[in-house]
Amino acid sequence: MEKALETYKKIRNQMKAYQFAFGIISWDSSTEAPKGSFENRSKAIGTLSEMSYRLGTSDEYMDAIDTLYNNVEKLDKVLAHEIVEIKKSTEKQKKIPVEEYVEYRTLMGSSQEIWADAKAKNDFNLFKPTLKKIVDYKRKQIKYQETDKLKGYDVLLDDYEPGFTTKDYDKFFDELKEKLVPFFKEINKCELQYNNSFVGKEFPREKQIEFCEYLQDVLCFNKEYGLMKESVHPFTMGINTKDVRFTNNYHEDDIVSAIFSAIHELGHAVYNQQNDPALDETFLSGGASNGIHESQSRLYENMIGRSREFWNVHFPKLKEIFPKQFKGVTATDFYKHVNRSFASFIRIEADELSYPLHIMLRYDLEKGLMNGEYEVDNIDKIWEDKFKEYFGLKVTKASDGILQDMHWGGGLIGYFPTYALGSAYAAQIYHAMAKDVNIKEELKTGKTTLINKWLKEKVHIHGRSLYPKEIIKYATGENFNSKYFIKYLQKKYEKLYQEFFRVNKK
Amino acid sequence: MEKALETYKKIRNQMKAYQFAFGIISWDSSTEAPKGSFENRSKAIGTLSEMSYRLGTSDEYMDAIDTLYNNVEKLDKVLAHEIVEIKKSTEKQKKIPVEEYVEYRTLMGSSQEIWADAKAKNDFNLFKPTLKKIVDYKRKQIKYQETDKLKGYDVLLDDYEPGFTTKDYDKFFDELKEKLVPFFKEINKCELQYNNSFVGKEFPREKQIEFCEYLQDVLCFNKEYGLMKESVHPFTMGINTKDVRFTNNYHEDDIVSAIFSAIHELGHAVYNQQNDPALDETFLSGGASNGIHESQSRLYENMIGRSREFWNVHFPKLKEIFPKQFKGVTATDFYKHVNRSFASFIRIEADELSYPLHIMLRYDLEKGLMNGEYEVDNIDKIWEDKFKEYFGLKVTKASDGILQDMHWGGGLIGYFPTYALGSAYAAQIYHAMAKDVNIKEELKTGKTTLINKWLKEKVHIHGRSLYPKEIIKYATGENFNSKYFIKYLQKKYEKLYQEFFRVNKK
Repeated sequence: MEKALETYKKIRNQMKAYQFAFGIISWDSSTEAPKGSFENRSKAIGTLSEMSYRLGTSDEYMDAIDTLYNNVEKLDKVLAHEIVEIKKSTEKQKKIPVEEYVEYRTLMGSSQEIWADAKAKNDFNLFKPTLKKIVDYKRKQIKYQETDKLKGYDVLLDDYEPGFTTKDYDKFFDELKEKLVPFFKEINKCELQYNNSFVGKEFPREKQIEFCEYLQDVLCFNKEYGLMKESVHPFTMGINTKDVRFTNNYHEDDIVSAIFSAIHELGHAVYNQQNDPALDETFLSGGASNGIHESQSRLYENMIGRSREFWNVHFPKLKEIFPKQFKGVTATDFYKHVNRSFASFIRIEADELSYPLHIMLRYDLEKGLMNGEYEVDNIDKIWEDKFKEYFGLKVTKASDGILQDMHWGGGLIGYFPTYALGSAYAAQIYHAMAKDVNIKEELKTGKTTLINKWLKEKVHIHGRSLYPKEIIKYATGENFNSKYFIKYLQKKYEKLYQEFFRVNKK
Repeated sequence: MEKALETYKKIRNQMKAYQFAFGIISWDSSTEAPKGSFENRSKAIGTLSEMSYRLGTSDEYMDAIDTLYNNVEKLDKVLAHEIVEIKKSTEKQKKIPVEEYVEYRTLMGSSQEIWADAKAKNDFNLFKPTLKKIVDYKRKQIKYQETDKLKGYDVLLDDYEPGFTTKDYDKFFDELKEKLVPFFKEINKCELQYNNSFVGKEFPREKQIEFCEYLQDVLCFNKEYGLMKESVHPFTMGINTKDVRFTNNYHEDDIVSAIFSAIHELGHAVYNQQNDPALDETFLSGGASNGIHESQSRLYENMIGRSREFWNVHFPKLKEIFPKQFKGVTATDFYKHVNRSFASFIRIEADELSYPLHIMLRYDLEKGLMNGEYEVDNIDKIWEDKFKEYFGLKVTKASDGILQDMHWGGGLIGYFPTYALGSAYAAQIYHAMAKDVNIKEELKTGKTTLINKWLKEKVHIHGRSLYPKEIIKYATGENFNSKYFIKYLQKKYEKLYQEFFRVNKK
């Protein structure tokens, strides 16, 4: 047992060192590596992956894990959680025949390029054969990995949000469907009136960066232990608590995109920075799950970053940096602009209210594909029908519909639902926080100090040493409940569209 | 034998993958890693180094190398060279008792900080005990590693410039001492007259970067396979031919520094880009030696970059970017400014003519320390005496004298001489190139296309698959001879100071 622990820690340390190298290399790839360097680069990454894979499946390591797993009740709580998780993922992996897994990895080597090409050419038929192979593999994967507790689509869902099954998600999305779809349709009939003269003006990149630097201080991001850079798609990489990086992307004809990407990524980044540093040497650093991680980015982005109070304090700074562009525009105008809701095709451009409907649609489709109700052959048509149902719009381009997201091309099935769940978690966590912290007063200070402190204690510090449902229970005192999310959206948008401002029927 | 070759290639591939990871991580460390990330970072690097060290000293690898070494005549020329080199360095390493090596590595863990602190406080006594330990270790290392062919200081010299011993260097430096010291003293009495009104003006960082981007195109640096960034000290990192990066550093009160750092690093970078791509998977990519690498950076920096012809073509561009700063300044003024020679304390700020004298001094001292003629106790006094002799200046601050360079604190003894050798190689190579290429005409095109092409064929393509002396023989048709360097400097400075321009005795 002691020997096993020693071996485990030694190899964990080595695996973490590989992860560190992969992290830095991947950061380099996404942010600056020369275009022509990728061929040699992938060879090196391939070799490192192979060495790391061999280490991670070595008998020495497996034996140590088995010994610890068989004595798990003698381990401290965090280590026990880690061992159970590793054992679970190792067992899951082992059930897939190696040759099938290798074939799938090979498919993944080209599938995203094929998807990107199909999207660029706006032709679903180009992607269809690849998507079929991916769906076939996922169906087989489910068969191999099914257990008494996890059947069908649940097998995949569990990878992204442990403990959440179709039972949980069906309930969640049914509630959204019942409450939010009609509500959104009502809102969608209205139009907000405000001074939007800044839309389409030029916002120089350097100045946008200046404001995003300012936002880092507002959200108390620790620059001593992190940095902000640029990449095509914004993302956050938490290497450990002392090295958390995120990127942004600037469009000179639009100031809103970079601001909310920055706040969103800062939500992820603050979460990673506020992990317990003791977790840095374990596999339990980072976020509890995709949904919990997303809850933090959404909480900062939407509940904090799209609030009236936030822009009352920070709009003057924005106007100071862009005086010409915002001439005559008030904080109220800007607040309205960043909260207006309307039906649109593209998920990543959707507002807070319509966003979960985009996810609901994807959930319906994934579930249908996994349980055999739907097939890839006409999945684009099913998308179009559902889209019409939820949004009242007719999809005319595959790139605005079935081809818009990179996820399925990357083999990510079961991932989407966590996005909506994250928003719903956020609302419940925000509601609980509001009992302990006077959030509106705190925002007046210009920083989120007490908000960060509360989230640290309740959520961030635990990393992934607790399951999502445990985090929610610990942070809010109750089980997950979508009512907070629905109420939050209804209250916010009712006020925004009916009470606070003049309503015009479109 | 076939089995050994297979094993060798497999492990070489893995070692190269580690090297790739170390390269990217070290690039990240030097150019952007968050300040507070270094503690966790060094742990990860430590673990990766240990894994890589274990692989590189594994019985499997050693046995394969031995088998190949014993059959070296059956291998192709490049592989044979590689095996001989690896065998040599492995044998050298093996001669040092492990505990002494570990002690030395531990010393290296803190020695540079101690040096930096002593330099900042301008107090040699703070560094003396550490330097003593380093010198003691190097003396012991010499004893362990001496062979019939390599004795004393030669053991160390061979690590940086294989094939060059004190015999070669003594001859070289004696010639410089005889010809250049009196010549420099004459020149040092004169002062160049020109319009230097741009000195001390403000040169915004962004604009300096713009000109350095332009210089990349002038020197035909392939941006598809490389990039330029910033760091405290400029350096070049050739990861492989498809990924060559270099950094620069910008001082807004000085335009000259960044320009010549850029050209210098571009010299290194072009060399790495023009290696035979087939060498990428071997240990023979990069430069043939420190001296040969430096010869390329010096050739571009001094012979090309400080030439009349270069600035005739490119000064207009510089003036276009900085019209106010260079108002009334001519290409001739700028040419004079970047070539003026005068006695100064700091090596890295020295001009082309006085630079080798700085190196000569360090060579004298290293040689004396290694053969026991000098001791660390009063090495600062010896420095001061020699400095007075070569430069006619009295050193009054240790940070201007014995403490100015980081090399000895980093355990680099035997490295300095390659800097002067590099300049001398450059002159000989330039002289040979001038027979095949009309350099002055080529410079008029605004690019260095034919110069790069010639250097590629004669020098760059070989990587380190040839020894320095072989490269010189191959590129110039004769053995190394310092006369080209001495003649080049005499001709250039005589013209600059006596014929071309008005001479004033100071």
